[in-house]
Amino acid sequence: MKYYGTYRLVKSEDLNHHGTLFAGRMSEWFVESCFITVAKEYKHPENLVCRKVHEINFNEPIRKGNIINIESKIVYTGKTSLTVYGKVTKGDSDKVIVDGFLTFVCVDEHGVKMPHNLKMDEPSTEEDIRLLNIAKSFRK
Amino acid sequence: MKYYGTYRLVKSEDLNHHGTLFAGRMSEWFVESCFITVAKEYKHPENLVCRKVHEINFNEPIRKGNIINIESKIVYTGKTSLTVYGKVTKGDSDKVIVDGFLTFVCVDEHGVKMPHNLKMDEPSTEEDIRLLNIAKSFRK
Amino acid sequence: MKYYGTYRLVKSEDLNHHGTLFAGRMSEWFVESCFITVAKEYKHPENLVCRKVHEINFNEPIRKGNIINIESKIVYTGKTSLTVYGKVTKGDSDKVIVDGFLTFVCVDEHGVKMPHNLKMDEPSTEEDIRLLNIAKSFRK
Amino acid sequence: MKYYGTYRLVKSEDLNHHGTLFAGRMSEWFVESCFITVAKEYKHPENLVCRKVHEINFNEPIRKGNIINIESKIVYTGKTSLTVYGKVTKGDSDKVIVDGFLTFVCVDEHGVKMPHNLKMDEPSTEEDIRLLNIAKSFRK
Amino acid sequence: MKYYGTYRLVKSEDLNHHGTLFAGRMSEWFVESCFITVAKEYKHPENLVCRKVHEINFNEPIRKGNIINIESKIVYTGKTSLTVYGKVTKGDSDKVIVDGFLTFVCVDEHGVKMPHNLKMDEPSTEEDIRLLNIAKSFRK
Amino acid sequence: MKYYGTYRLVKSEDLNHHGTLFAGRMSEWFVESCFITVAKEYKHPENLVCRKVHEINFNEPIRKGNIINIESKIVYTGKTSLTVYGKVTKGDSDKVIVDGFLTFVCVDEHGVKMPHNLKMDEPSTEEDIRLLNIAKSFRK
Repeated sequence: MKYYGTYRLVKSEDLNHHGTLFAGRMSEWFVESCFITVAKEYKHPENLVCRKVHEINFNEPIRKGNIINIESKIVYTGKTSLTVYGKVTKGDSDKVIVDGFLTFVCVDEHGVKMPHNLKMDEPSTEEDIRLLNIAKSFRK
Repeated sequence: MKYYGTYRLVKSEDLNHHGTLFAGRMSEWFVESCFITVAKEYKHPENLVCRKVHEINFNEPIRKGNIINIESKIVYTGKTSLTVYGKVTKGDSDKVIVDGFLTFVCVDEHGVKMPHNLKMDEPSTEEDIRLLNIAKSFRK
Repeated sequence: MKYYGTYRLVKSEDLNHHGTLFAGRMSEWFVESCFITVAKEYKHPENLVCRKVHEINFNEPIRKGNIINIESKIVYTGKTSLTVYGKVTKGDSDKVIVDGFLTFVCVDEHGVKMPHNLKMDEPSTEEDIRLLNIAKSFRK
Repeated sequence: MKYYGTYRLVKSEDLNHHGTLFAGRMSEWFVESCFITVAKEYKHPENLVCRKVHEINFNEPIRKGNIINIESKIVYTGKTSLTVYGKVTKGDSDKVIVDGFLTFVCVDEHGVKMPHNLKMDEPSTEEDIRLLNIAKSFRK
Repeated sequence: MKYYGTYRLVKSEDLNHHGTLFAGRMSEWFVESCFITVAKEYKHPENLVCRKVHEINFNEPIRKGNIINIESKIVYTGKTSLTVYGKVTKGDSDKVIVDGFLTFVCVDEHGVKMPHNLKMDEPSTEEDIRLLNIAKSFRK
Repeated sequence: MKYYGTYRLVKSEDLNHHGTLFAGRMSEWFVESCFITVAKEYKHPENLVCRKVHEINFNEPIRKGNIINIESKIVYTGKTSLTVYGKVTKGDSDKVIVDGFLTFVCVDEHGVKMPHNLKMDEPSTEEDIRLLNIAKSFRK
């Protein structure tokens, strides 16, 4: 699996009263980015529903005019479910300022769960192993 | 602590392509509702920032025209932090269709953490004890 | 009949160029809150349409970061119509900073008016009698 | 005084769950149109605040894809206040499908009322006399 | 053909991080205004699709609280296409601060191009001749 | 220079009355994507303003639920200006369904043009030469 990225420009309409990116708006973009990732991999967005946000960490404020990059990738596959890790960086920095995990399930037109048949390669990097283990711990 | 409630009407602009309430939009309303709750209790919204979404569970689809009630209350207080439990019901039903936990921290004008000085009563109901324990497990 | 309440947080996207809550945005939230109230009482939102705003008074500016509570209740029932009184308070204050009256009619799937069959108790408090009389004066 | 007009296209994001233009959205556009009119006449929008919606009548449903024309003009001037009449037509029809009256007050930078010094000609048409009388009746 | 005009009030939610009207938002309003114009002339919006923006010039910044007037008219008709010229003025000034050209095509319910049968008068003013020539140069 | 990409999910709120992506909304996303690209390369978004949309071609309808990828890159640098080429693809297809060119200028805090000092490599691929030539033709 690979990362799919989306750039977002923080505009006036996205701010809270502190003048920073409203956590609710960041959550909306985060969920949308993770959905895009599973849809790009599974190819049938109409069969994917978001079941759970496992966590989202807001590590730093994000200000008006900042350009953020929201990248996400599938890190764990169950038979009918897909768990996604997402992270956000700002400007030229690699520092992860927001990250989290979501799980989607694959359903048929009646809303009944069905297998997605996606296969993941074994994780090869330390980072991927770390992410897989965190995803598994959520899934117990 | 008590529940603060917000009603929301699901409109066309809130839908995903399935024709159900987009999980990203529900997350935005959920975060906003929890923020309102801590602001109502702490009285100084300018000192509150959202630090973490611990989880949000989406148990059922929500459709256009549904009226949902998003209720949240503080269930755990640390020295500088406040953890909120939120739940969503639909129409006349008591069934919890979305729920989750968020943590906010109290900060001064420089963004440095500071004590909020809010005190919670000891939980008295089974439900409140259950919620407190879940909140504590997130906080470890 | 009872009050149904909705909290709203005033964010940057809701402001006019004065930096206060844009009256058009307040009107939109006000109408939506009143609609939610009639839908909660009548239970079939698909049969309710807004026929008239009788008045909305804007008594005070509302600023970014304010948390307002929009409460509304049915104060008068005709055979096919329902008149709602709504009021807005801010923060911890009881002062009514915006209020007004709206009328909805109950229609069938062809848009033809039909009886809603909702019954109101006789108003018991001074406030309820006052509101009923104002509603009646609009309805002549 | 003359009418200032604004065309609006009703899009998916403006609909209620009936598939018609949401009354709250229409109210928001209506208030904005009336504000534009007083700002065009008074030339200093920063001194104008909306004080009261006297009424808005919703006579007909408006559907997705409809192009509506919202026209408004000042029909009554007090010393510090301006009352506006607004009407909405659809497509090529002259039928007034929404109309209403709003009052704005002129305030200084401290929010204190001040004279606007706008003068209206005496109404010459039957329509203008009718509108002036309705505006006066609201202003008692 | 004549100009159809739409007033817009620039609000906080329309700003970029410079505090001026975000060019993307201006583009959205510009396209919508041109669409309204072709729909008012052709009368069947369901048959019109936007094929091309030929150019949009942003000559001056537009600030919060400004009231702009977006006027557009058809300046060239092909057999199945319509080219529109749009211009934006601000406050009381006649200075054109944004302008541009768009082309729409008339299609049937299968998306196949079809004649619109609209006829334009020969341009009579210098301005109209100038606009027609520019439109023709785009259409080569 | 390289392409910067942004994925977008087309939701109900983005549709026109045909049920396809509203050209105005696509224009807004297109301008925002091009802005992000110049900001990522120049690193000081506060000094960049959009001066002109040279053209945007809408080649195919885009539907609700489609995931589009908007990619853009700088293809021509003047002393104070930057011209960007943007293209949109859908799902797994490489077919360019929307494309166009925009020019931004670099300005100081008073809005006066200033050199950006960005250097482009000589175009090496056929595609890049083609894009450079189109950009130059716009710039005459």
